[in-house]
Amino acid sequence: MSVPTDPTKEQSQHEDDVLERIGKIVALDPTPRGELHLGDDAAVLLPFVGEAIVSTDVAVFGVHLDAELFSLGDLGFKAVASALSDLAAMGARPRALVTAVTAPPGTDLEALHRGIVEASTLANCPVVGGDLSRGHDVAVTVTVLGECPGRGAVLRSGAKEGDELLVTGPLGRAAAGLRLRRAGASLDDELVMAHRRPRPLLKEGMAARGAHVHAMMDISDGLGLDLHRMANASNVGFALSDVPVAEGATLEEAISGGEDYELLIATNDPGRLRLMFYDRGLRKPLTIGVVLGDSSLRTLAGETFLRRGFEHQL
Amino acid sequence: MSVPTDPTKEQSQHEDDVLERIGKIVALDPTPRGELHLGDDAAVLLPFVGEAIVSTDVAVFGVHLDAELFSLGDLGFKAVASALSDLAAMGARPRALVTAVTAPPGTDLEALHRGIVEASTLANCPVVGGDLSRGHDVAVTVTVLGECPGRGAVLRSGAKEGDELLVTGPLGRAAAGLRLRRAGASLDDELVMAHRRPRPLLKEGMAARGAHVHAMMDISDGLGLDLHRMANASNVGFALSDVPVAEGATLEEAISGGEDYELLIATNDPGRLRLMFYDRGLRKPLTIGVVLGDSSLRTLAGETFLRRGFEHQL
Repeated sequence: MSVPTDPTKEQSQHEDDVLERIGKIVALDPTPRGELHLGDDAAVLLPFVGEAIVSTDVAVFGVHLDAELFSLGDLGFKAVASALSDLAAMGARPRALVTAVTAPPGTDLEALHRGIVEASTLANCPVVGGDLSRGHDVAVTVTVLGECPGRGAVLRSGAKEGDELLVTGPLGRAAAGLRLRRAGASLDDELVMAHRRPRPLLKEGMAARGAHVHAMMDISDGLGLDLHRMANASNVGFALSDVPVAEGATLEEAISGGEDYELLIATNDPGRLRLMFYDRGLRKPLTIGVVLGDSSLRTLAGETFLRRGFEHQL
Repeated sequence: MSVPTDPTKEQSQHEDDVLERIGKIVALDPTPRGELHLGDDAAVLLPFVGEAIVSTDVAVFGVHLDAELFSLGDLGFKAVASALSDLAAMGARPRALVTAVTAPPGTDLEALHRGIVEASTLANCPVVGGDLSRGHDVAVTVTVLGECPGRGAVLRSGAKEGDELLVTGPLGRAAAGLRLRRAGASLDDELVMAHRRPRPLLKEGMAARGAHVHAMMDISDGLGLDLHRMANASNVGFALSDVPVAEGATLEEAISGGEDYELLIATNDPGRLRLMFYDRGLRKPLTIGVVLGDSSLRTLAGETFLRRGFEHQL
């Protein structure tokens, strides 16, 4: 999809008019009694239960998603799913999200916002506010708010020697989907869907928190990078026995691909985790290795496991 | 300040390295016990008291701030102040903010983040998370979180017939400052400061909420636009007696200039409001008119008061 790049161009519209049209797309569900979403200086939400969790993510068309192969709706969907995945990684229950969009005049802002709303609706996390501006880039910033009742959020820094390492599913689907799309696969292809419509694993994250796991994070930049980040935060090492490769993906895609948004978990009670997942009808988590006390030991099948994966360039 | 526009250019840096450098600028104060700010998938905040308030604002260099006349630090400062002003407009107490920045390679991200931190520090509202991406625009999205203990947030929709209308200060300072800067005034000029380093009126907003005012909003796009927005939301009219013009500003700048971030208040008990402001050492609010029941009546000194002010083009 090509995007005009001159923000002073024709087709400019008054902000209030555009906001009204987009408000109709966004405000699908009735606002809960006592809350106020769009239309005032800020949104008002009923009290949070327990810790409040917040994360913000920006997705730029052409940087985070190939603008030739995917649509504005995909950009909106993916921006929301990626931000919600950060709530999943803490074990949080989503409460609300806000979006800020920049785009050149003439951009189909309604298509973009339909993608945003599809992802927020699937996660039962309403869009409660937003902002719009013209700019050269089509960029979507999504800020998500969640809550952690009872025991607090699960951090990435809590992994301990002897913990089992698990992932919520096989890896490499999103990277394989991008490769297939570049080779002409349809937008409906299952792996292409994994790339353009990723699913934030909110139920899995909440179940893992309920199982009192020690550490958790989402695999957004590839296991080869994110596992090192967890190990650094926890000051531990690891011995990977296995990397589960998704059907249709390569080992390299599974290690370095990123954007799978599967969860990486460290726990000293994997039986409890598996039972909790089974109880809730979630896919069985897959064991990939064990946490070591020596932070300099980082191996896959006995070989040194180097840091590699998708690092954004700034 | 000129900004390179090719995001594929030299000088690109690894995200983790840049994040570490910026983290040192942002994490000035010790994190409160029980909270976690930067470094995990999301930030963890201690429970909010009462309603949770959230607003998001995007500021694009060259759109929201003249990139030739002002600095990246000004952009960061103004983006934060503008977002915090939305909390002030609800009467909320600020709790935390997150930022998402896009910029071309080579942009001085540290200068930009120093401006962000100056504004957040003045408001005692910590930066608890953020994201970075390359892009053509230098754009800063700020999402602010606040709380309203006790009685809830003050909406813009609560103005009632007979209410007195007040503003927290004379208007037009920011527009006058831009005019003076264009004519060569120094960055330290008081009116130029009002343009590039606006002050969110958080104490005034909390005091007005404590005085049980009926409606409140911040004047971000000019009284000529924002007063109509309040009247539309409340389904009322108004009779303005006076528009207080700041020293050095014109009447037109006071009506249409925008970006003053003064608060517009409607209350049936202005004595209580003035007392509350006096008690807290705040400037005396200025009466500008009265709310009418007929929403079609909108006048200044008896003449029709048309909708006018700064409308963003999209």
